[in-house]
Amino acid sequence: MDVNALQKRLSEANQSHLLQFWDELNRDEQSELFQELQDMDFEAINAFFSKAMKASNCCSGQEKVDRRMEPVPRDVLGSVSRDRERLREWEQEGLFQISQNKVAVLLLAGGQGTRLGVSYPKGMYDVGLLSHKTLFHIQAQRILKLEVLAEEHYGTKCTIPWYIMTSGRTMESTEEFFTKHNYFGLKRDNVIFFQQGMLPALTFEGKIILEGKSKVSMAPDGNGGLYRALGAQKIVDDMERRGVEHIHVYCVDNILVKVADPVFIGFCVKKGGDCGAKVVEKTNPTEPVGVVCKVDGLYQVVEYSEITMATAQKRSADGRLLFSAGNIANHYFTQSFLKDVVTKYQENINLKKNNKKKNYISSLLDILSKPLLLLYDFFFFFFFFGLLFSRNFVVYEVLREDEFSPLKNADSQDGKDNPTTARHALMSMHHRWVLNAGGHFVDENGTRIPAIPSKVRNAGSAALIADVHQNLKDITDLPIKCEISPLVSYAGEGLEKFVNRREFRPPLIIDETGVHELVKNGL
Amino acid sequence: MDVNALQKRLSEANQSHLLQFWDELNRDEQSELFQELQDMDFEAINAFFSKAMKASNCCSGQEKVDRRMEPVPRDVLGSVSRDRERLREWEQEGLFQISQNKVAVLLLAGGQGTRLGVSYPKGMYDVGLLSHKTLFHIQAQRILKLEVLAEEHYGTKCTIPWYIMTSGRTMESTEEFFTKHNYFGLKRDNVIFFQQGMLPALTFEGKIILEGKSKVSMAPDGNGGLYRALGAQKIVDDMERRGVEHIHVYCVDNILVKVADPVFIGFCVKKGGDCGAKVVEKTNPTEPVGVVCKVDGLYQVVEYSEITMATAQKRSADGRLLFSAGNIANHYFTQSFLKDVVTKYQENINLKKNNKKKNYISSLLDILSKPLLLLYDFFFFFFFFGLLFSRNFVVYEVLREDEFSPLKNADSQDGKDNPTTARHALMSMHHRWVLNAGGHFVDENGTRIPAIPSKVRNAGSAALIADVHQNLKDITDLPIKCEISPLVSYAGEGLEKFVNRREFRPPLIIDETGVHELVKNGL
Repeated sequence: MDVNALQKRLSEANQSHLLQFWDELNRDEQSELFQELQDMDFEAINAFFSKAMKASNCCSGQEKVDRRMEPVPRDVLGSVSRDRERLREWEQEGLFQISQNKVAVLLLAGGQGTRLGVSYPKGMYDVGLLSHKTLFHIQAQRILKLEVLAEEHYGTKCTIPWYIMTSGRTMESTEEFFTKHNYFGLKRDNVIFFQQGMLPALTFEGKIILEGKSKVSMAPDGNGGLYRALGAQKIVDDMERRGVEHIHVYCVDNILVKVADPVFIGFCVKKGGDCGAKVVEKTNPTEPVGVVCKVDGLYQVVEYSEITMATAQKRSADGRLLFSAGNIANHYFTQSFLKDVVTKYQENINLKKNNKKKNYISSLLDILSKPLLLLYDFFFFFFFFGLLFSRNFVVYEVLREDEFSPLKNADSQDGKDNPTTARHALMSMHHRWVLNAGGHFVDENGTRIPAIPSKVRNAGSAALIADVHQNLKDITDLPIKCEISPLVSYAGEGLEKFVNRREFRPPLIIDETGVHELVKNGL
Repeated sequence: MDVNALQKRLSEANQSHLLQFWDELNRDEQSELFQELQDMDFEAINAFFSKAMKASNCCSGQEKVDRRMEPVPRDVLGSVSRDRERLREWEQEGLFQISQNKVAVLLLAGGQGTRLGVSYPKGMYDVGLLSHKTLFHIQAQRILKLEVLAEEHYGTKCTIPWYIMTSGRTMESTEEFFTKHNYFGLKRDNVIFFQQGMLPALTFEGKIILEGKSKVSMAPDGNGGLYRALGAQKIVDDMERRGVEHIHVYCVDNILVKVADPVFIGFCVKKGGDCGAKVVEKTNPTEPVGVVCKVDGLYQVVEYSEITMATAQKRSADGRLLFSAGNIANHYFTQSFLKDVVTKYQENINLKKNNKKKNYISSLLDILSKPLLLLYDFFFFFFFFGLLFSRNFVVYEVLREDEFSPLKNADSQDGKDNPTTARHALMSMHHRWVLNAGGHFVDENGTRIPAIPSKVRNAGSAALIADVHQNLKDITDLPIKCEISPLVSYAGEGLEKFVNRREFRPPLIIDETGVHELVKNGL
């Protein structure tokens, strides 16, 4: 190991801090770090960073993007709450496409659970459900159930291929996990792993971040990596070979994600969309969510950090926020559209020649060159780039409580997007499903628990000594513990035969082996 | 002490558990507990409980109330987001009434911070603001500022009397606290304390709850106690003597409460309401908030525990929840109306004779007899009872992020209504105020922080080693630390002269002594 030479290179690149713990490392660690750094092109990384910082100085351009924004027009917007009479038709269409083997799922699972405090892929995280299913497990079972539902509706056996994009850091452990769990019942051939590239993670000062004293922190490469991967690893070709026409793309961290949602797919198909976004209504101006809107007449997602407060607070006559289409990284593409975009990306199309789209392209180039520290940003780019070529973009608004609860942070006191909120969101939805199917929950005295359970009731009951810690524990245990396997119900359907006119004492599990009241069973 | 006799009484009343720790107590504690129990009428308490349980079996009557519910009609509803062109007119009217000494504030502050984990009154709680002001302090300063604003608008010195209802447990410490802080700058004569009655807290099994081994847990008496107190302690008379015509009633625990809000008061006055409720839009069907609606043609608040899931999920054609007027315990009464209700309450009016209101009254009697474990329920009753006699009830919808963030629980992982969420809500609002007045925030490098700050940016910046705990700490420290004294701005007004075109590095305090950037000042 020529450490002196490396030191010199690092010093020239202004990255000397990477060796700051050198003397504390043992020989193996030194060797590992040396090898990792030896292979890096610091000049390229620094050039990339300079370009990125120049382009992404968010506030210099802010006022401009802001003034050019227009909301999504009603005619390209479908809504779960405002178009209720169409939902069944869309669902039928989606199930039909599934039954014809025309629907695939593309999962972006390259991120590690660093912010969650774990070093393994997020999809392997157990948020503490009664069943202790991981995110991957839940999503796999949703796919299995949809295949059954489509067969029941249209009488043909069918398959939903699942493309899972991992990264250098997560590929091996992800595949191992699937193997260990026997692909959760899916056919191995229908789960296709592929890999995106990696870049060192950078601070906003351009310094490479260490993950440990002897390890550089790597992040998925945002620079068009998915398109490169889709092309280079022949994923688009595989889709074509299988006859896939519709692709649902999503991020691994949303515990409520309706994988291959037939209503969303049916909506996009019926509208003739080549590219679609599922959104939730943004109700608070300062909520950190990107919004789908038009800029210079073209659709795009404007990130929350690029919006001024004045624009974020704008309201329509009906009192809602004007820019309310909150992007949840949940998209639809036709296969031909995706192929087209990948091809264009591979051809390294000279975007600047296209005059009409000039402003748009300048924003695009900003994005292309940002240092993408997080998967979200990466995903954002992917969609953003795709949008540029969409001829018929459609937007579908869904209810947050039914479809969006991302897992991003470890548990903390402000309680946003953490394992507790994810677990509660899923159990609360399953609780609603039971009530909507005619079931009820009772407490330990046999008294019915109200549909919207009160914290006070749970906290106070049976507590003869008012113990604050005990009360807190009870409160944290809310909502009612209830979990329904995706193999039993995909979106609340088909539960009447299990629950109608029945009373349950939580915790309750309904799965493929039956209805289980854990207290009665002494579990 | 005749402990045997007490034991016998307790045994007959099925409350023997109250002496379960007797042998562990020292002589003083034994004496204290003996005295407390000796004075209690267990027969009365048990009778009260039986009646309450009979009446409040929530689910037996549930379907019925449910089917009789209608939403608040648009013509009695004012809205901050949908009636923007009227807001200025309402505000002027409210400030005018204040300038004429016709507005008073009634604060319900009887609750202790038990769920918060403290034994003193909630109003004395410090949620950890930069200034470490307590809830009482903030509210006092809002009153002071409104008096100044009204004088500026209408040229007359004026007073907003502040009536503070405490309970047996909180009276002494509350008065001491105000004295110690010199009434926060208010005139002592204009802060009027009075006291509501207390009852032992009961479990849902009818057992009296111990607060400690030698102390019974007492709760404010919900049984019409406020009306009794308002009458018996001549509070209504005092209002009349002072010429008060409009009363804003609120709960101590909402850190964003706009005390004596001139827009709300002006709206109620212009609409000719005798009784009004401020509400926030309920956007999630299972949110535990009561809704203002009509039942049998009469207005009332239906508690969330009495609504079925089917009703809670109903939506209007515009996609919003049909029952969306979320009650936040924030009300308006005319003085003559309040006097009328207190008189009727004192006369123990024979409600049953009034046929037209029969169903309503039966619900009312349910409420009257519930064991009210929490202040919220108490407040609810107070409003509920008042509504019965309203001839012109009006509803005013405001934005949650500007007006409602209650402090109910200690910090916990699901992060609802706790010190962290309260602190964040206030700082986030003050941050918006600064941006709306033309100011900006910059980070340690002088780069402007986006209007909606990104968690990633804060977490990643300057961290050369990715340390999960450090990142979590940074995330918990969000939003931007910014606090504006109510003495400087009541609702965001008048900040331009301090912040327009200026850049600030957080933490930032703007108070009566000036603009303070804590980092620059080395604080």
